Amino acid sequence: MSNFRWSNPVTVYFGPEQFKELGKVVASYGKRCLLVYGGGSIKRTGLYDKVLDLLSEEGITVFEKGGVEPNPKIQHIREACEICKENGIDVLLAVGGGSVIDATKCIAAGACVDFDPWDFVAKRIMPQKALPIVDVLTAAATGSEMDSGGIISNPETNDKEGVGGPLLYPKASFLNPELTFTVPKAQTAAGSFDILSHIWEGWFTTEPPMTMLDEVQKVVIRTVIKYAPIAMEEPDNLEARENLMWASSWAMNGFMSSGFGKSWPTNHPIEHQLSAFYDITHGVGLAILTPRWLRYCLSDETVSRYVTFGTDIWGIDPDQDPFDIANQAIEKTEEFCFKTLGIPSTLTELGIGEEHFQEMAEKACQPFGVINGFRRLEPKDVVEILKMCL
Amino acid sequence: MSNFRWSNPVTVYFGPEQFKELGKVVASYGKRCLLVYGGGSIKRTGLYDKVLDLLSEEGITVFEKGGVEPNPKIQHIREACEICKENGIDVLLAVGGGSVIDATKCIAAGACVDFDPWDFVAKRIMPQKALPIVDVLTAAATGSEMDSGGIISNPETNDKEGVGGPLLYPKASFLNPELTFTVPKAQTAAGSFDILSHIWEGWFTTEPPMTMLDEVQKVVIRTVIKYAPIAMEEPDNLEARENLMWASSWAMNGFMSSGFGKSWPTNHPIEHQLSAFYDITHGVGLAILTPRWLRYCLSDETVSRYVTFGTDIWGIDPDQDPFDIANQAIEKTEEFCFKTLGIPSTLTELGIGEEHFQEMAEKACQPFGVINGFRRLEPKDVVEILKMCL
Repeated sequence: MSNFRWSNPVTVYFGPEQFKELGKVVASYGKRCLLVYGGGSIKRTGLYDKVLDLLSEEGITVFEKGGVEPNPKIQHIREACEICKENGIDVLLAVGGGSVIDATKCIAAGACVDFDPWDFVAKRIMPQKALPIVDVLTAAATGSEMDSGGIISNPETNDKEGVGGPLLYPKASFLNPELTFTVPKAQTAAGSFDILSHIWEGWFTTEPPMTMLDEVQKVVIRTVIKYAPIAMEEPDNLEARENLMWASSWAMNGFMSSGFGKSWPTNHPIEHQLSAFYDITHGVGLAILTPRWLRYCLSDETVSRYVTFGTDIWGIDPDQDPFDIANQAIEKTEEFCFKTLGIPSTLTELGIGEEHFQEMAEKACQPFGVINGFRRLEPKDVVEILKMCL
Repeated sequence: MSNFRWSNPVTVYFGPEQFKELGKVVASYGKRCLLVYGGGSIKRTGLYDKVLDLLSEEGITVFEKGGVEPNPKIQHIREACEICKENGIDVLLAVGGGSVIDATKCIAAGACVDFDPWDFVAKRIMPQKALPIVDVLTAAATGSEMDSGGIISNPETNDKEGVGGPLLYPKASFLNPELTFTVPKAQTAAGSFDILSHIWEGWFTTEPPMTMLDEVQKVVIRTVIKYAPIAMEEPDNLEARENLMWASSWAMNGFMSSGFGKSWPTNHPIEHQLSAFYDITHGVGLAILTPRWLRYCLSDETVSRYVTFGTDIWGIDPDQDPFDIANQAIEKTEEFCFKTLGIPSTLTELGIGEEHFQEMAEKACQPFGVINGFRRLEPKDVVEILKMCL
């Protein structure tokens, strides 16, 4: 029996026509805005100027904190919190992908407290107060635009963990698929894999959800598998970009996992160790891990889910031995990750060896000492999976 | 290109475990509650007592307005508004199906104004203030539990139209599928058809939505087609009831129609005339109309959508002439409505003749004089469709 609570307070403004509302929406939360962005691609594409124009029309005073990196770093967030406090910032505007929005969530909470914002992560403190967040999404991937969490890195301690709470949902997210036309091929691939991982880390479960949600999840998986390669080959294919963007938001906003989701997350905590120790791209780490994790979890108890995966996602002939179907499904997944998406197929290719595997595995299994996913994974299991990725 | 705004402020508490939170949630909006319900089935099933217990535990003072009828009547709403004003009601609790929740929405607005609540309908006034609404859903059908509108009838004028606005979203909806075990067979059938109609009145369009949403809508259509007959035969089949209940909410909450929905509604305004003039069950009217509307709209311009409908919903062999597939799809729909669901197949069976068709057709086309749906329908077209239903 399903028991769950659904609520999502984010207002989404989708498409170029809606984008024009940005200034008014930000102004509704205040006149002193901190603009948070990444490495500067928004300046090259002209988006930065458009955003400033829309804010200026509403008489908003804009402060800036650019330079948010992928796997956003706590030191940068600390600096942004100081800017907020010194300048009486009313509202935060994140313009970027998941890293920028994640960082902005931590800034929103950190700007309202006297302690170090890293404490939200390290001490698992739930924010009791936060500045309002508006975002302009520039990459389909993390789903941060419609969820209440962010993942923050601390390079000093090789930690990468989450901050979260109901106050960290964006108030408004502007999703204009045209803004993703400039996302490079490799980043489109990695982002798409992140979307897939958000769905199927939960979808692979021995207790499937209600049929409608099970089928909806398959739709979104098939959507991403169909459109990711198209967006990679034709960056300005609007149909592909809008499907990927809306898939990104719905993969992580709680609807599709309503009432089950017990298996989520499994690969995410393992990957977070890879990117914490080696600062690699999150979606790349996930794509390397996933086929190995699938191989590792295959058993008499789990095989039926692989059969559904193989037949309903990859179109494999159902009239075969279940384990044959499962193995073919894993091969199809590998082919998709490493050929279609062109993601490196091993950790070795990224210069990663096994020297930190034990430590990473133990961290991945925190705080319970185990990952209670599709198959129960203890640190020794995580080490095995990581070794399979070499 | 899709341009739309998505936002849905309703918090859903799904399942029996979540139902226990009812008292606390109502209390968070105030201590003086008007309980609104229908013909008394909630007393027979014991739900009434359970609700009163949960409210009592929180020290809530309960006033009552039972007796809401299907196609809820404005006179009853007027009386409820007076109760609210006289007793300083803080919060409304609707316990029932779509009619009870719809009535409660009009009460929520009417309790805050000095004018006749029928003016919200007749003069299309958007409520500027409303009492908070909590509901306990007892039938999967209208989706009122997750939308911002209600349909109200005025038997004096044979009018049945909507009241709506952002303030009329329920604050919280309690969806416990077990509460629908007692819904009679005929009402399960009619409610299920209402769900279907909410989706496919928009899904039949010459401008399909983005692929992901198109496919998600097909999933929900297939879900209802699969589970409605099961729930009719096995009223306490939890899998069927939970799928139908969650389908009901998502069919009307705006997600699946994001960015298109230009064809919605088409049969709803026509059916509202049938139930306004003859007080018939909404889902029954829709089921009688739909196959005729599908026949009437079939043309060279629209046939491709019928082909998708036939192959993807009804499993019809795609290697045939498009019009052959379309006609088979309509026949399958008729078979589903009139055999599987057991709904009467003609208006004649309900004692309805053509004497009011012209007047009904003109009202259905208000306020623009035309229904701009899948195919543009003027009053003369509506009369033709109604005649096909005799």
